[in-house]
Amino acid sequence: MGGDHGPRVVIPGAAISLVRHPEIHYILFGDEALIREELKSHPELADRCEIVHTDVAISMDAKPSQALRQGRWKSSMWKAIEAVRDGNASAVISAGNTGALMAMSRFCLKTLPEIERPAIAAIWPTVQSECIVLDVGANVGADARQLLDCSMMGAAMARALFSQDRPSVGLLNIGVEEVKGLGEVRKAAEALRDSDPPFEYHGFVEGDDVGQGVVDVVVTEGFSGNIALKTAEGTAKQIAEYLKAAMTRSPMARIGAVLARGAFQALKEKMDPRQSNGGVFLGLNGIVIKSHGGTDAIGFASAIDIGYDMARGDLVARLAVDIEKFHASLNMEIIAK
Amino acid sequence: MGGDHGPRVVIPGAAISLVRHPEIHYILFGDEALIREELKSHPELADRCEIVHTDVAISMDAKPSQALRQGRWKSSMWKAIEAVRDGNASAVISAGNTGALMAMSRFCLKTLPEIERPAIAAIWPTVQSECIVLDVGANVGADARQLLDCSMMGAAMARALFSQDRPSVGLLNIGVEEVKGLGEVRKAAEALRDSDPPFEYHGFVEGDDVGQGVVDVVVTEGFSGNIALKTAEGTAKQIAEYLKAAMTRSPMARIGAVLARGAFQALKEKMDPRQSNGGVFLGLNGIVIKSHGGTDAIGFASAIDIGYDMARGDLVARLAVDIEKFHASLNMEIIAK
Repeated sequence: MGGDHGPRVVIPGAAISLVRHPEIHYILFGDEALIREELKSHPELADRCEIVHTDVAISMDAKPSQALRQGRWKSSMWKAIEAVRDGNASAVISAGNTGALMAMSRFCLKTLPEIERPAIAAIWPTVQSECIVLDVGANVGADARQLLDCSMMGAAMARALFSQDRPSVGLLNIGVEEVKGLGEVRKAAEALRDSDPPFEYHGFVEGDDVGQGVVDVVVTEGFSGNIALKTAEGTAKQIAEYLKAAMTRSPMARIGAVLARGAFQALKEKMDPRQSNGGVFLGLNGIVIKSHGGTDAIGFASAIDIGYDMARGDLVARLAVDIEKFHASLNMEIIAK
Repeated sequence: MGGDHGPRVVIPGAAISLVRHPEIHYILFGDEALIREELKSHPELADRCEIVHTDVAISMDAKPSQALRQGRWKSSMWKAIEAVRDGNASAVISAGNTGALMAMSRFCLKTLPEIERPAIAAIWPTVQSECIVLDVGANVGADARQLLDCSMMGAAMARALFSQDRPSVGLLNIGVEEVKGLGEVRKAAEALRDSDPPFEYHGFVEGDDVGQGVVDVVVTEGFSGNIALKTAEGTAKQIAEYLKAAMTRSPMARIGAVLARGAFQALKEKMDPRQSNGGVFLGLNGIVIKSHGGTDAIGFASAIDIGYDMARGDLVARLAVDIEKFHASLNMEIIAK
């Protein structure tokens, strides 16, 4: 029921992802009449779907506390998360209210042992392939310990997603020496060098390294991570506008654009934000994927694909093992000082 | 003497900017022999230049404290800043060590009354024209009061640069409700709504609003500002690589690219980071411009242009007046709570 378009995007999105992963089974939570109406156009989904009717849907502007009060036990969002908790679903995908989804996920699934705060990870296209950036907005400010947890969670996600044994992890930093306030980032770096993490610790990376694919996982706190993500999206949009203007400015350019139509199409696909739609909530006892609220069926299908990959990669079980090993190897003196 | 290339970039850069602003006079601080050698290729500069020989140059990797110790009173960087302090120059432009330049500028020029910490402002190209983003790395973390100071300093710069009477100012924020840790940003917003600032306070903006030109001035603390700036640069570079790959992938695309050559040239210029090279140190009793260390003559000329515009716009005097008026109108209770 979530997002700007509800079942009108979720159901066609589910159909697209089913073509790519024919073994998927869906449980659709929400208004049964609306769901059945949409399913009419997607008969191929009918025998891959179970519908669980709910009367309550969390609105996009509800505050997390409000959503918990009004929607716990009974809303479509809650029921979907509960299906993961009870082992009836391998992952939950929602285009709904982010704050509510996080609050309910924490309440229902609980965080993994030793994890203080879940994070949201985004998949970021790079010139080489893709990398993972976290946290992109679950928490503002992070101490060294939380940055370490993010490193480990991001690495576990990279293993599940990229089938890499030892992904590389970088801490996002700014290239200015002797600036105050970076204590926690430096402390995290020191602890990583001193411990035996289940990934390759690369060192610091800067904002312009992310898209170059310098590392598989970029770790930062939620404020700067969210701003970096939105800024990259905004810059891509801005350049697309420049390009469009440039290609229509003269008759010659227009002819050139027609001839290069295939190339522009490929470029458009490469720059399409729908391809990497889907934030992964990490650090919970279960897989929760947040789709952009405003996306369409193609974008929603990407979010389902991520949930599918995370489930197949056995993210949560791997992460639990890593946490135990990693925390045992950490020098807590560095973090505490 | 600063930057990766010293006089080999500074002097040709000065020549380019002189064509655009024939009334400029330069004072060149550094190794006289090297400068004279470079000037041979730029005879048009000869009678617009004064050379002040110095034996000491601050290295690019010196720490600020080290630079101050070794370079105070005698280095080219110090002497150039001193020329601004003594009224012999209207602005100083350096491609040298950022930390050293900031430390020496603070020491020599002092901050304006009521300004706790200077900030670095960047000019950011937008789909409409340009905007100003600050702080992009002078300070990490900022309390409400420092965000307010940045708002005012950015607005004064916008007036000097864009000839706008009441520029619009936005506070960079993330669009997540009830997230902890944004207290200072919210407090600054409340104080702005409650006071009578010498600019239009727009409200919050997100990372993707910057390049859309939603406001003239975007205010944030230095860590997220630096990361946003670098991320935008990195994304532009990444897309340029995609575009290049797309336009060479088929014979048809190659022909199209040849026909649209003029359009691509215009696009390239629009995306050229050299066009907006030059960070402005704000909050000091004088104009200090930091050029990228790795830029070329075209980039260095942009930094000179910014210094020229700031001096012509009488930035420092305007700012001093604004500070007094604005601080008088501020409700300090909001900031202190």
